[in-house]
Amino acid sequence: MKLKIKQQILMEHLNNAIKGVSSKNLIPILNCIKFDLREEGLYLLSTDNDIAIKTFIKKEDIEAIDTLGEVVVSGRYIYDIVKKLPSTIINIEEVVDSRLYIYTETSSFYLNCNMVNDFPQIEFEDHRNPITLPQKVLKNIYNQTAFATSNQETRPVLTGINFKIQKDQMECTATDSYRLSKKIVHLNEEVLEDINVIIPTKNLSELVKMFLDDDHFVELHIFNNKIIFKFDHIVLMSSLINGTYPDTSKLIPETFKVKIKTNLHELYDAIDRASLLTNESEKNTIRFESHGQEATISSNIPEIGNVKETIFIEKEEEEDIHIAFSSKYMMDAIKSLEHEEVELLFNSEVEPIIVKNKENPNLIQLILPIRTY
Amino acid sequence: MKLKIKQQILMEHLNNAIKGVSSKNLIPILNCIKFDLREEGLYLLSTDNDIAIKTFIKKEDIEAIDTLGEVVVSGRYIYDIVKKLPSTIINIEEVVDSRLYIYTETSSFYLNCNMVNDFPQIEFEDHRNPITLPQKVLKNIYNQTAFATSNQETRPVLTGINFKIQKDQMECTATDSYRLSKKIVHLNEEVLEDINVIIPTKNLSELVKMFLDDDHFVELHIFNNKIIFKFDHIVLMSSLINGTYPDTSKLIPETFKVKIKTNLHELYDAIDRASLLTNESEKNTIRFESHGQEATISSNIPEIGNVKETIFIEKEEEEDIHIAFSSKYMMDAIKSLEHEEVELLFNSEVEPIIVKNKENPNLIQLILPIRTY
Repeated sequence: MKLKIKQQILMEHLNNAIKGVSSKNLIPILNCIKFDLREEGLYLLSTDNDIAIKTFIKKEDIEAIDTLGEVVVSGRYIYDIVKKLPSTIINIEEVVDSRLYIYTETSSFYLNCNMVNDFPQIEFEDHRNPITLPQKVLKNIYNQTAFATSNQETRPVLTGINFKIQKDQMECTATDSYRLSKKIVHLNEEVLEDINVIIPTKNLSELVKMFLDDDHFVELHIFNNKIIFKFDHIVLMSSLINGTYPDTSKLIPETFKVKIKTNLHELYDAIDRASLLTNESEKNTIRFESHGQEATISSNIPEIGNVKETIFIEKEEEEDIHIAFSSKYMMDAIKSLEHEEVELLFNSEVEPIIVKNKENPNLIQLILPIRTY
Repeated sequence: MKLKIKQQILMEHLNNAIKGVSSKNLIPILNCIKFDLREEGLYLLSTDNDIAIKTFIKKEDIEAIDTLGEVVVSGRYIYDIVKKLPSTIINIEEVVDSRLYIYTETSSFYLNCNMVNDFPQIEFEDHRNPITLPQKVLKNIYNQTAFATSNQETRPVLTGINFKIQKDQMECTATDSYRLSKKIVHLNEEVLEDINVIIPTKNLSELVKMFLDDDHFVELHIFNNKIIFKFDHIVLMSSLINGTYPDTSKLIPETFKVKIKTNLHELYDAIDRASLLTNESEKNTIRFESHGQEATISSNIPEIGNVKETIFIEKEEEEDIHIAFSSKYMMDAIKSLEHEEVELLFNSEVEPIIVKNKENPNLIQLILPIRTY
């Protein structure tokens, strides 16, 4: 393998490939990036066995392709080296004793290579019927649901986001069993077969960080045991989480006894301040009480002090609500809404709270109350 | 105590007072800020017994002073509360059961107060002959020497910066015994008595962060066991480190066998890249070799690979130098210089290296070589 390439171009692609390199030091080959130089251009590949990334630099973007070939080299070192090289043309060449020679006019690096055959074989195949979405849509799904994912490995299915697709409707759900986020997206085309998969949230996090342009599209190729995302010049493959996602369809109440409307930022700021006098060990519990067209949010730490916040609300029902919940969970839920107004829907102090916006019925946030009364 | 004050003004001063609050949770009173409301305005005080801060809000900047008095309240909580309150007028009032009532139209906080008498008595007295410097000068002293300070508590004197003042010359020295930074500053007035004190580097770090305007002045009031800095509306008192600072005057060679001049950024970048293939456990050792008008910087990690960087140098002497040193120490030293050109001065591979700039004889960086040959 021998080529010349501009530092900026190689760096841009290494920025993506490095995201697939294992952060653990257990299996050396998984710390590597594979360079595969072909007629059509340079492929960079990385995988930690849970995620795999392929990024492609087309030959027009390469200064010179002298010898085709493959090398496998430490991802972290090649990334750091290219990052610190000046903005110039870099020569990269495989030399004797399976070493990679990376040089410019004044810098010369030799890196020991790993065996090409040791690098995992990755199949980035196409599905017959991929789903196509604007990158912005998938990024919003992530931003509006991922925070509700569990990070407890004891229930692996809850560490992912459930994508349930029937016809032209895609329902994305995340829950840690104390709260739930559900976002419904309408697809442009119907799927031929129902799909029900759980995608690891941490892999979706890496994916959306690579999205550069909200208007560009991303293709979802969904298989039984993996999902492949194709966008721009990048292919990202993620494992799927085995297991059955809990049926959450009956959790969300259809009717509510108390419906409150209020300004999103005022509610958020009041909860944010009230949360100053809560303890993480006690789930940052705050109390919320409506009194006609006013609500108070209060909390206390006995040895420190107490706080009471007042906000104006709109409420049509006579009935009032006295309830307690986690300030952190409520703030996460409120933040995910995109409008100036927020609706809080209640039935009783022991039933789920729904947080949503009237204009956007496709995003629902559910929080379980905390019993303190 | 009862007053009304704009959130922005109180916040600006809490930002300083919080820096004196102890970060340890051992002695509760040291986690507090004392509010002292007098005819002339509001004083905020904090101390962790090693540093003490007093900041003053003059009465013209306070909306209303209703009742004079003192309260002592948790620094972290009052800071967080005022920070999260909207930009409005805040009412602060001492109420029954020694509680502090902090309220706006919609927010109300009660914080339990500590006993005023438990708060340490701090003497912020004036010295007859303070030294006056522009804030920029003291900030530069810090930035150009502090990094050479030791963070090993085994030799406490090395965790501070030594200020030695004779007549109108102030010599500031920091060393961790592997490298040394020395900056000489000429004062506008002569001191009456010689001064030789060691100021804890961590306290100087807090001090220079509070400097807002390089052109403003700071007064240094130096006593036997403490130093008081007065600037803008702030008074900061720091302990001094007991002990005798090592005599470093004979460490810096007067003559050199090899004198090299080169471009500062090229040298820095070359060392930065070479340091990629060094180990922290081996002091990030790199080799530097001059060959006429060229120098190479090289290093290697046997299992990973090796690197060689080439830079152009100016050298008048015939003799060449082959030497090894810590890339980290050299980069710290180079960064502290303010010019485009850097001078590296050598005698032999086992004698100290001097890093300086010809135009600025008042700043000297010394690095001990590492023996590898």
